[in-house]
Amino acid sequence: MGIKLVTTAAELRAESARLLAEKRGSSQGLVPTMGALHTGHAALARTAVEQNDVVVASIFVNPLQFGEAADLERYPRTLDADMALLDAEGVDLVFAPSVEEVYPGGEPLVRVTSGPLGEKWEGASRPGHFDGALTVVAKLLHYGMPGGPAVDGGAAAYRAYFGQKDAQQLALVKRMVADLSFPVDIVAVPTVRSTEGLALSSRNRFLSEEEQEAALVLSRALRLLESRAVANEPLELDSVVALVESQPLVRLDYFEVVDPRTLEPLAENCRDTPFRGEGLAIIAAKVGPVRLIDNLPLSS
Amino acid sequence: MGIKLVTTAAELRAESARLLAEKRGSSQGLVPTMGALHTGHAALARTAVEQNDVVVASIFVNPLQFGEAADLERYPRTLDADMALLDAEGVDLVFAPSVEEVYPGGEPLVRVTSGPLGEKWEGASRPGHFDGALTVVAKLLHYGMPGGPAVDGGAAAYRAYFGQKDAQQLALVKRMVADLSFPVDIVAVPTVRSTEGLALSSRNRFLSEEEQEAALVLSRALRLLESRAVANEPLELDSVVALVESQPLVRLDYFEVVDPRTLEPLAENCRDTPFRGEGLAIIAAKVGPVRLIDNLPLSS
Repeated sequence: MGIKLVTTAAELRAESARLLAEKRGSSQGLVPTMGALHTGHAALARTAVEQNDVVVASIFVNPLQFGEAADLERYPRTLDADMALLDAEGVDLVFAPSVEEVYPGGEPLVRVTSGPLGEKWEGASRPGHFDGALTVVAKLLHYGMPGGPAVDGGAAAYRAYFGQKDAQQLALVKRMVADLSFPVDIVAVPTVRSTEGLALSSRNRFLSEEEQEAALVLSRALRLLESRAVANEPLELDSVVALVESQPLVRLDYFEVVDPRTLEPLAENCRDTPFRGEGLAIIAAKVGPVRLIDNLPLSS
Repeated sequence: MGIKLVTTAAELRAESARLLAEKRGSSQGLVPTMGALHTGHAALARTAVEQNDVVVASIFVNPLQFGEAADLERYPRTLDADMALLDAEGVDLVFAPSVEEVYPGGEPLVRVTSGPLGEKWEGASRPGHFDGALTVVAKLLHYGMPGGPAVDGGAAAYRAYFGQKDAQQLALVKRMVADLSFPVDIVAVPTVRSTEGLALSSRNRFLSEEEQEAALVLSRALRLLESRAVANEPLELDSVVALVESQPLVRLDYFEVVDPRTLEPLAENCRDTPFRGEGLAIIAAKVGPVRLIDNLPLSS
């Protein structure tokens, strides 16, 4: 394997400097993950490799963003398979620090707080989740900075890659980078789907065959809205909600069309007047025992 | 003047890169200020110039950390005098952004939160103050990063300078840098005092001559504790508190010996047993119309 594993922030910085010099590179990409990688993560890595000379993927299961200790314990750890997948995509470095390396003084006292944007939708059912996620993303964005200069002697470009699948996390990370002036470009990578349309997620493995079939109503509903938006037709969101609710194995949590930046509902724009402008259709539902989320950007 | 004024983050980064290359430098120092500079700030600048090849001072009166709009309005703006003082110390660049440059989208939604360490002492009388201060310090630490490499082609060293005078702010900034893994070294610069011992502050100008005389009891009390600590004697804090309270123009807010990192009182260590180890004596009092703070590190 060409890929190299490092476990401390100091090693990561030194290896980044070495690789930028060796490759005569001028850019570095960071792909933050919690491991248990699937084809969706591969798309993040591939995009980062296409756009940067040096690519670092981090694998860290962050205790701060788990509500319950049992959830954290249960989270799958598959480092060897993850390394192989990242190597196949051309990633240079895997940064897999211990909890002790990331939180040497125990839980952080000073944290990032996600504000009202982190309290709605996914945040409503997972209090504190986005504060924990943003706090570790802030740390990872600092760890992953280029350790050396660009080949021309200027500062190396720096980009970090997040999936559109976790739309609220993506909106919050973009907002954090703007609000706290991080010197990094956030690149959103489109959701990867099964041929039937199901958004890839490490949770899909817990769906029975029947539940997988039922779960397709989520992406079908999103695509119905997308086709109406593209055609400048009224979205008639209520009727699409009814379509999802008619599927007996699916218990809908929320289904809304929101502003992609503020995540506030675009109530005026979703009923019986032609859709205009930009929106994001977001959906969350329990299918059997598994909570699934999905979303599609809408534009007219 | 050799000093140069820049007002945007992009200019700051470009000028930093240019200066590092021109000076064949390998380090950059940042001195964050709110302007209205006095000899205490000059000591910050001087230390930064001694330790770094390129030095940036920022001047930004941060609306987020003011409780009342009137306070913010009243805050003195003296850019020309500030530039002259910084130039005399050998600072290369002054970064004086507008509120619009720092907060282009209005007030930030995603912020840094100071946690329990920000709620006590100064935080108790100024709710939200340290959250606002840390949020802007996070931004300034990002803006002030070296824009280019060190002369040897490695990453340039990066240091930021804060006064010991604002002990709680210093402790919080150090904690933020550790907890959020900022790639910067925080350097504490000792408090500058008048010949009589009064800690320099832009608020001292509001003291009458009589009040200035009365205010000296603060530093005298701190020095009494310091001499007892050095001599391994019991601190007998209560008797020193009584000394301060005997001064009729002084209304004491708090006076404690705390752990320098956690700011928790070292109650066991301050009464009638010989002082051992490290501590920080902190004091806040109103003298006439002016609230003053001061502190001294103690070690046996």
